[in-house]
Amino acid sequence: MTKFAKRLKGMEKSAAIVRNIFNGMNDPEIISFGGGAPAKEGLPVDILREIANEVMRKESRGMEALQYGGVMGIKDLREFIARELLAPKGIDAKIENIMIGNGGLEGLYLLCRSLINPGDVILVESPTFVHAVEVFELIGAKCVACEMDDNGVIVENVEVNIKQYNPKIIYTIPTFHNPTGKTLSQARRKRMAALGSKYDVIILEDDPYSELRYSGEALKPIKAFDKSGHTVFANSFSKIFSPGTRLGYIVGNNEIMKHLFDVKTATNSHTSTLCQVLASEFFDRGYFPDHLKNLCDIHRRRRGVMMACLDKYFPEGTKHTYPDGGLFTWVDLPNKIDTTEMLEEAERDYKVSYLAGECFFTEGGGKGRNSMRISFGNVTTEKIKEGTERLGALAQSKIKQFSK
Amino acid sequence: MTKFAKRLKGMEKSAAIVRNIFNGMNDPEIISFGGGAPAKEGLPVDILREIANEVMRKESRGMEALQYGGVMGIKDLREFIARELLAPKGIDAKIENIMIGNGGLEGLYLLCRSLINPGDVILVESPTFVHAVEVFELIGAKCVACEMDDNGVIVENVEVNIKQYNPKIIYTIPTFHNPTGKTLSQARRKRMAALGSKYDVIILEDDPYSELRYSGEALKPIKAFDKSGHTVFANSFSKIFSPGTRLGYIVGNNEIMKHLFDVKTATNSHTSTLCQVLASEFFDRGYFPDHLKNLCDIHRRRRGVMMACLDKYFPEGTKHTYPDGGLFTWVDLPNKIDTTEMLEEAERDYKVSYLAGECFFTEGGGKGRNSMRISFGNVTTEKIKEGTERLGALAQSKIKQFSK
Repeated sequence: MTKFAKRLKGMEKSAAIVRNIFNGMNDPEIISFGGGAPAKEGLPVDILREIANEVMRKESRGMEALQYGGVMGIKDLREFIARELLAPKGIDAKIENIMIGNGGLEGLYLLCRSLINPGDVILVESPTFVHAVEVFELIGAKCVACEMDDNGVIVENVEVNIKQYNPKIIYTIPTFHNPTGKTLSQARRKRMAALGSKYDVIILEDDPYSELRYSGEALKPIKAFDKSGHTVFANSFSKIFSPGTRLGYIVGNNEIMKHLFDVKTATNSHTSTLCQVLASEFFDRGYFPDHLKNLCDIHRRRRGVMMACLDKYFPEGTKHTYPDGGLFTWVDLPNKIDTTEMLEEAERDYKVSYLAGECFFTEGGGKGRNSMRISFGNVTTEKIKEGTERLGALAQSKIKQFSK
Repeated sequence: MTKFAKRLKGMEKSAAIVRNIFNGMNDPEIISFGGGAPAKEGLPVDILREIANEVMRKESRGMEALQYGGVMGIKDLREFIARELLAPKGIDAKIENIMIGNGGLEGLYLLCRSLINPGDVILVESPTFVHAVEVFELIGAKCVACEMDDNGVIVENVEVNIKQYNPKIIYTIPTFHNPTGKTLSQARRKRMAALGSKYDVIILEDDPYSELRYSGEALKPIKAFDKSGHTVFANSFSKIFSPGTRLGYIVGNNEIMKHLFDVKTATNSHTSTLCQVLASEFFDRGYFPDHLKNLCDIHRRRRGVMMACLDKYFPEGTKHTYPDGGLFTWVDLPNKIDTTEMLEEAERDYKVSYLAGECFFTEGGGKGRNSMRISFGNVTTEKIKEGTERLGALAQSKIKQFSK
């Protein structure tokens, strides 16, 4: 019998959850609120066809796109990121401090791989992104959860946990948090950045959703307040451009980038040059502002419909976030409803799917058992109405069962 | 000061070598025999433009290409691999046993990540692929080298090392071996497969070059002789299709695939759907046979020119492989020439680059100090003539220095 690596054992629970997510996505009858994809109607299919038609020529960038590239990623895409995505947010980055990865997740992986020894602690939010926890567990980190309120993670609790656990990394999703949709206040952002230098700990700021803002004012990222290089900024093109191109980036200080270079080299050499060339042409030709506006318009409508439907169809006593952006809302059902138990019935009998709240809490203890994450990103308004009505009916039926 | 992970320390030497390779590739004046890229003139730029033009439409596969995909990879690409690439080689694989990765290297990473605990031993060939060693070191494995002769790795020596070191994995590149260009004999392939089940050890067969055959008869892979599921077969589309699409695949038994699924999920979720869709359309539309023939024709000519030039320009006493395929030849220069020391002069004064033999020997001890790996894949015949003449002149000048 082949003996597998020890560290895989810690992953079993979250990996099983993820396998279930992907199974749920494969039944075409099911209306799935479970995934984290942006609206497929907003994907820039026609523009990318036009770009491919122009640049996939030997006299243009065709051979560059199909040949090996550098470990850090192609220069023009990193220049676009520095100039158009980071500078307006108050992040002053050189291209040497930006690496392109396979989606946003790989940035988390590369950083953890560079920093974490088995048993090291990573502070996470409670709840937090389930795929990130998988990365942390794969690398052998121990996750310790920090409390959140409506303004995001509670900085005092983070500081208490730093003192108690001496973590290597503090992982946070400050804007349109996954899974709750909440946003960390500006005052707390400054204080989070200060914790990095005060305790010589890395703040890993994951920011895939901030461009998807449908209401309210933009806030500066934690990284904009970082003066000592302790904040590492990870981002993704999956939500604002295309998940299927698997592009993301990570921004860190010189010393960190040197290590990321070595780890990236020994994981998959570099990210697809073809995808990078198409993306950089898309951005450099000026398509992004209109594309993003269209995507936000689609999502804003869907958010509005979902918020109204939750109020209309879900049982009395239900609470949910009204997110200013991103792809998710977080629903707390009346106490007695167990969302983990209810999921199978939801998929089998009601043909509707969601992510059970429990899987987002690394600390366990039954937290999130009456919560769910539901996404409005890649579900049409018609399906949002239909799906929330089905899910509401199931929840109502549970309430009736309890009151019998 | 940020403390980095312990296991990165083991990587420092090979990572430094790789940084040098990439630096050498960036000087346009240098004729580089150092890389491992196929002929850029053979890349299917025009065909992929046509395919993109047809499929990147909402009514075709455009939205699939730009949206998230499954962890294992898209079905039709895996079906093509099973039917057209594996079955003709005598490998009977179901699509559940095939995972698409970011290039061939990621397959090695995913397998090692699944199997290796820090300190576990991997048997490698002496010499072996430097990037593979980086992967093994990143994961904390200890590499032990097995002797080779002109028929590839010596199976008796592998067996001795299995008994002595109890390895988790035996890593081999049996066909057009990197860096030497040698090919493991058929008889030894059978015996290697048998070692897997006899000692319950995984044989990791890396096969990126076997389709690039320019002379001689094809041999079956080790995996074709594997009856117990102990051989894992890793391959790449980089050499036969396009490095820039970063596509490869790994084939293993059910238990291994379950673990690879979890590791892939927690590393980068899945491989670019866009690249997979374009590749699968390329293969399913029947372009591959003519494309491969053209690519082999280009490489065959380059191989011929390089072999003739080595004989013409290099010092008396030089020995080199005459490979039946692949991208490399391995040159042993007369004893006193130190290829590690000579490299800086070669790049600076002679504007020609190669990989110093030393970096391919995990066991150190000065092995390979008079050897070099030179690639004819992505160098035109004119540049091969010019570059080998320059390199030969440098080597001749060294001989003259010694005889003074």
